[in-house]
Amino acid sequence: MSTFALGNNIWIQTKYVRIDILTVVPELLESPLKHSIIGRAQQAGYLELEVHNIRDYSTNKWRRVDDYPFGGEAGMILQIEPIDRAISDLKSQRAYDEVIYTSPDGETFSQGIANELSLRENLIILCGHYKGIDHRIREHLITREISVGDYVLTGGELPAAIMTDAIVRLLPGVIGDAESALSDTFQDDLLAPPIYTRPAEYKGWCVPEILLSGHAAKIEEWKMNQATERTKRLRPDLWERHKNAGK
Amino acid sequence: MSTFALGNNIWIQTKYVRIDILTVVPELLESPLKHSIIGRAQQAGYLELEVHNIRDYSTNKWRRVDDYPFGGEAGMILQIEPIDRAISDLKSQRAYDEVIYTSPDGETFSQGIANELSLRENLIILCGHYKGIDHRIREHLITREISVGDYVLTGGELPAAIMTDAIVRLLPGVIGDAESALSDTFQDDLLAPPIYTRPAEYKGWCVPEILLSGHAAKIEEWKMNQATERTKRLRPDLWERHKNAGK
Repeated sequence: MSTFALGNNIWIQTKYVRIDILTVVPELLESPLKHSIIGRAQQAGYLELEVHNIRDYSTNKWRRVDDYPFGGEAGMILQIEPIDRAISDLKSQRAYDEVIYTSPDGETFSQGIANELSLRENLIILCGHYKGIDHRIREHLITREISVGDYVLTGGELPAAIMTDAIVRLLPGVIGDAESALSDTFQDDLLAPPIYTRPAEYKGWCVPEILLSGHAAKIEEWKMNQATERTKRLRPDLWERHKNAGK
Repeated sequence: MSTFALGNNIWIQTKYVRIDILTVVPELLESPLKHSIIGRAQQAGYLELEVHNIRDYSTNKWRRVDDYPFGGEAGMILQIEPIDRAISDLKSQRAYDEVIYTSPDGETFSQGIANELSLRENLIILCGHYKGIDHRIREHLITREISVGDYVLTGGELPAAIMTDAIVRLLPGVIGDAESALSDTFQDDLLAPPIYTRPAEYKGWCVPEILLSGHAAKIEEWKMNQATERTKRLRPDLWERHKNAGK
């Protein structure tokens, strides 16, 4: 958060986030955060994103950062030393709020965690790759382990991109129309109602008449009914949370 | 699945998947599936991946594919016509097993769904963007709606990449060491045990002695105990599933 004076007694608050991603395959992250809304967020100064190659912190002349596991498991494992050096180097430059490791056995990422992390200033996200990382990294260097879902991926790069995207789009100003983020699914534990655009009829498939009626109050009522019905039917777990939040 | 003869009465089965991704921001997907394991899977012929720009199917001279919503919601909505044309064009070329839409209110993606989709041959994944897509697309053209988790993203491109990655790494041959995928978290509803690699001591942090002992049977027992303890503590829901599967 930085505050600057616009004139006498007028102060503007801007919120930005810095995210440092550590990976052995930085080329995977070349495009997915460079375009569209997250790309524009960087150009506009809301997000400072740096992707670091862990190999740059190897002291090995072949830039090797992985080795065979103790105890005979299959697969290769990222070593502690280059990762410790990378994290220490970043920490010597600024204070970090969290050092996150993307792991399928971490706490499950949610809109609530995205909201929370969007209020932080500096984040490190360490991406696992190959079979995983030396467990001592998780015990001594990581402050938070987050999973984007119950599935296994070839690495933590896509989860790091997912978290960055979910966090950055919440920063004030990043999405042009603030209302658009507020009416998203999950912000109030309700699924969004169905949405339609032109043409009103296509191949005999019609937009619900109410949406063409111009009766604003009736349209709002219809949307709320649809959101409620969809949430009850498709996500009874969210519906329970929504009801309890209203109590 | 294709079968070819290696010699008299010796047949080899190879499994490949074709995935067509439809998006309005194809540049987001330039790098995340081109490198590492998924990149090599394409070079080796396990995966045929095509990313299509929905704007190529617009009949509008400005290649416009979105419009304002009926009923006054904020945000822009992808129109049905270009998406219908894109899907029809693909379907005229081959049979598709599923036309998937990445949506936060779809069924939750899991290792089980990844396993299931890895047995399919041709998949279309439609990425939403902006505020979403005309609901008639979901009612008439989509066969399956999948969410990668309970959070909102700027588009469906990262979820499409996540699904592709999770599916393709399961194809036989894609991961060099087959054992490596089998010992992953989730394949038996158990979290993986801690893993360690050299050095055995780093800054006073030591690898558990048992892993250095060379007693294969005791190491296996330790790993199973660790996997069990971690699953019970961190993911009691998975532990319940694991127990019930064994009954």
